[in-house]
Amino acid sequence: MLVSQPANIRYLCGFSGSAGVLLVATSESILFTDSRYTFQAREEVSGARIHIAKKGLLREVGAILKSRKSRTSVAYSSSHLTVAQMEALQAATGPRVRWVKDASAVETLRAVKDDAEVAAMREAAVLISRVFETALSAIKPGISELDLAGRLELSMKRRGASGPSFETIVASGARSAWAHARPQTKLLGKGELVVIDQGAILHGYCSDLTRTVFLGRASRKVRRLYRAVLEAQEAAKKAIRPGVTAGAIDKAARSTLKQHGLDQYFTHSTGHGLGLEVHEMPRIGRDEKFVIQKGMVLTVEPGVYLEGLGGIRIEDDVVVTENGSMDLTTAPREFLEL
Amino acid sequence: MLVSQPANIRYLCGFSGSAGVLLVATSESILFTDSRYTFQAREEVSGARIHIAKKGLLREVGAILKSRKSRTSVAYSSSHLTVAQMEALQAATGPRVRWVKDASAVETLRAVKDDAEVAAMREAAVLISRVFETALSAIKPGISELDLAGRLELSMKRRGASGPSFETIVASGARSAWAHARPQTKLLGKGELVVIDQGAILHGYCSDLTRTVFLGRASRKVRRLYRAVLEAQEAAKKAIRPGVTAGAIDKAARSTLKQHGLDQYFTHSTGHGLGLEVHEMPRIGRDEKFVIQKGMVLTVEPGVYLEGLGGIRIEDDVVVTENGSMDLTTAPREFLEL
Repeated sequence: MLVSQPANIRYLCGFSGSAGVLLVATSESILFTDSRYTFQAREEVSGARIHIAKKGLLREVGAILKSRKSRTSVAYSSSHLTVAQMEALQAATGPRVRWVKDASAVETLRAVKDDAEVAAMREAAVLISRVFETALSAIKPGISELDLAGRLELSMKRRGASGPSFETIVASGARSAWAHARPQTKLLGKGELVVIDQGAILHGYCSDLTRTVFLGRASRKVRRLYRAVLEAQEAAKKAIRPGVTAGAIDKAARSTLKQHGLDQYFTHSTGHGLGLEVHEMPRIGRDEKFVIQKGMVLTVEPGVYLEGLGGIRIEDDVVVTENGSMDLTTAPREFLEL
Repeated sequence: MLVSQPANIRYLCGFSGSAGVLLVATSESILFTDSRYTFQAREEVSGARIHIAKKGLLREVGAILKSRKSRTSVAYSSSHLTVAQMEALQAATGPRVRWVKDASAVETLRAVKDDAEVAAMREAAVLISRVFETALSAIKPGISELDLAGRLELSMKRRGASGPSFETIVASGARSAWAHARPQTKLLGKGELVVIDQGAILHGYCSDLTRTVFLGRASRKVRRLYRAVLEAQEAAKKAIRPGVTAGAIDKAARSTLKQHGLDQYFTHSTGHGLGLEVHEMPRIGRDEKFVIQKGMVLTVEPGVYLEGLGGIRIEDDVVVTENGSMDLTTAPREFLEL
């Protein structure tokens, strides 16, 4: 099997550099990387031989495969390798290698976390919850979205996170209706909703937490919206247990919002798997057939987005237990007027 | 032409969201994105019609191509589209579409910056230089690599950068010999080299600056190494002018280090193009035939890495002028003992 996705490589042999390919064979595994990562590979890799490539990773992978005596079948990830990379590999190996699309074998393994992984993810989730709680005093009119985002990321790093698991979102006022807004120089203003979506990487594992606060005293409409989103989140969490489909969890959130006449404002899926990557299997979306298992770590993050008024999203990370789910994130969920 | 790379999409139509595909046809251009980006696309896009895809971007691109009356040739980027994406497109369009590999047409356009782009890049380069200069007082024994990296990124954001152009590198002591070390909880210590490699994104354009400082009083050996790297950088800058190859610039740096008996410690290429992405065409590496033109913006960043002792890298961003090159970054280059 040729493993090209960085998170899969890290999962299998520990290497966290950004340039690497892992060849897993029956006899041995070989990590191909380049000279920039010589020292790092020596320190991190276990269970694989290290090969420092001088002429390009794929070319040297190809050369090794070509040198084998017998015809070989090699599984690869068609959703990660580019057309050009595949062509380069095929040219380097010639017709002796039969390329087989793999069905996300490593991703499927990764979806179920063992106890040590859950412990690491709980740490990452508690860390990001603390970051939010201690930042509350800084969330006020006059600070820019970018400044607040920078402070949150600095706080993650001071607590030992290797960095944010994605670019921190701070979106205020009308911009909070952009579900994936990037922070700007805009100042937070009184009377605005503020969506803060952030995650930290600790020991390689990601957390992902969203809270929405209001600056000042909110209208009845905003409070009603917030309550509906929180109710949808709770319904989705309650729907989680081994054996249900990802689609059933999504449906629990969506139908709760429908009861409030708000489902048309819920424009994304309810959540996703979380682990070495911030988006992993499974996707918790409409009609998804993926069956939930014990040990999976999921985000649960319904939201509503009203053009002009703004957006409200509430997101926690949960681990699937024997009979249900347990929150990993610990930040307060009640509506905060700051 | 089917444009799938985010930076190319931004270059051509202004859209900066992370999920989008741009179809450029003779008659009209269409940006495909999903409902998360509805508002953002409306605000940002010019010169293209916006299509909000509900069934997956590539499926809907395929449906539109299939609906055309005549056979169509579509250029695509084989170094960006994955094998699975290409198969999905082919399945959606059927045999009527002829897929043609494009030779990095948009990347080639992007390599040469116009005056407005150079002005934006100068701003981004001055910003990151100021970030370094004002951080000097914080670079001292006892601060962790991660804390310093977080402060640098906060400073970028306070100055209006939308964020770092890559994960800020702060590598101290023996770890500075890892050319791509990620910051850790390790504290900076007296008697250590500290490599700081950082960039900021401003108005969409990237800067990229590396400085290496010493904490305390450096040995003669370390000073000698620093002087050699600086000399190599100056030689490379002097070699830059329209008409030379990228390989000639690399050679200028490499042969200077060779004169000092240090070329075996220079384990990466001399630099790269810079723009909407932090790594763009051209690569300034050994034997690269790419011909340099006026208006290109390049990094010049030789370094030496000695296991145990640490690493030294000095990096500036320059713009290619009529007769040579001009620095965009302004941070001091002399050896700093802090």
